[in-house]
Amino acid sequence: MTKEVQANRVTAGMIVIGDEILSGRTKDKNIGTVADFCADLSIELTEVRIVSDEISNIVEAVNALRERYTYVFTTGGIGPTHDDITADAVADAFGVELKVDDRAIKMMQDRFTDYPMNEGRLRMARIPVGGELIPNTVSGAPGIKIGNVFVMAGVPKIMQGMLEAIAPELDTGVQQYTASCDSHVGESSLSSGLAALQNSYPTVKIGSYPQMGSDKYMTQIVLRSPDKDLLDEATQKVREIIETATNKKLKI
Amino acid sequence: MTKEVQANRVTAGMIVIGDEILSGRTKDKNIGTVADFCADLSIELTEVRIVSDEISNIVEAVNALRERYTYVFTTGGIGPTHDDITADAVADAFGVELKVDDRAIKMMQDRFTDYPMNEGRLRMARIPVGGELIPNTVSGAPGIKIGNVFVMAGVPKIMQGMLEAIAPELDTGVQQYTASCDSHVGESSLSSGLAALQNSYPTVKIGSYPQMGSDKYMTQIVLRSPDKDLLDEATQKVREIIETATNKKLKI
Repeated sequence: MTKEVQANRVTAGMIVIGDEILSGRTKDKNIGTVADFCADLSIELTEVRIVSDEISNIVEAVNALRERYTYVFTTGGIGPTHDDITADAVADAFGVELKVDDRAIKMMQDRFTDYPMNEGRLRMARIPVGGELIPNTVSGAPGIKIGNVFVMAGVPKIMQGMLEAIAPELDTGVQQYTASCDSHVGESSLSSGLAALQNSYPTVKIGSYPQMGSDKYMTQIVLRSPDKDLLDEATQKVREIIETATNKKLKI
Repeated sequence: MTKEVQANRVTAGMIVIGDEILSGRTKDKNIGTVADFCADLSIELTEVRIVSDEISNIVEAVNALRERYTYVFTTGGIGPTHDDITADAVADAFGVELKVDDRAIKMMQDRFTDYPMNEGRLRMARIPVGGELIPNTVSGAPGIKIGNVFVMAGVPKIMQGMLEAIAPELDTGVQQYTASCDSHVGESSLSSGLAALQNSYPTVKIGSYPQMGSDKYMTQIVLRSPDKDLLDEATQKVREIIETATNKKLKI
């Protein structure tokens, strides 16, 4: 990858917070959504961590990833109950206080009429000092932006709304072009050709994905590059590798 | 949690290896499977990381998690192509050589008749020195066990078979009992009662999960404990908290 491209890389890490995912009780749906969201904006999602509802685990993950990536997206743990500790952990990670925020109360009361601020609702209005609010069009209680960290809800519908809300302010990376080629041979028949091709085209990322469950072997080759011409060249060579392997297989 | 229970804790970390998950192209199905598998064996899955196909990222994750947890499960990156680098990374993490292993070749050739060892297949037979093989009943190429790390395939069907194969040799933790209570009130109405209850029952883990998408508010409270009597007591108190909140709501 050339220096120019490196300079324009926009990267992201994601932290999924919640015992319910780790216990198997809830199957995560947010990772795929964030991955697609990043791909659409040419942001490279580079790492995801799923951590349990323990302050120290969340603090460690937030601090590790916010140093490393352009953006960090967290999901989960910002509701009104005692096990919702993400705001506390993010405040800890940034070394700032966590305070009930009038803007947050206003946002919640603007969303619903008759919304008395009980203990749980006040809990959701606590924002790390210096944080900005992310609107929540579904249930009112805001997400939080602080530094390069975006703290969002775990409920998929609310999380998706928050992603839409923050999209306009995110830097986007260099557009990546992709191409894919399907084949009816096993991965092993393609591997040496693909390895040599990857060496010749270091700026084109070539991935190989076997597909199980069908009657026959199926392998999909996916190519990705910021350089459209190089991508087209490499894709043509993948087609030739597949053709050679297929003809060889037919002869056997 | 008492010391006795701590001593019997069996924990796990999981590492999902694959650019295809981070790019959104493939939606992961293995995390939920491993989470359920661990829950069934009373193993606490405590952290999951999804990392890209870069040796250094995989090495870092393997070394971080194998120090921390009883077991580490990895999925992905053990196929025959150049982007399958998990075995290389695991060998690096353990500081051992990666060598073509006759046992692995035999396992693959036992599975299929007419299975010539081309470059790709030999790649799948490379095992870190000191590693044991995990049988693969689906496609022959083995997984790897080295130290407390279990290296498995990314294809869900193959991964599931490997989990079944390793299950008998895993230590299991103290059995956790669980209970759950559904309510038709919002989380905010329950939060203060639940927070007080959690303080009174520190060995019963109480989680609160709102359910969106239905017409009405729905909150599910899930309780987990190794102590059945305490669990039953706390569950009864949750029912009382829900009843009080529901009556209050009805009155409004």
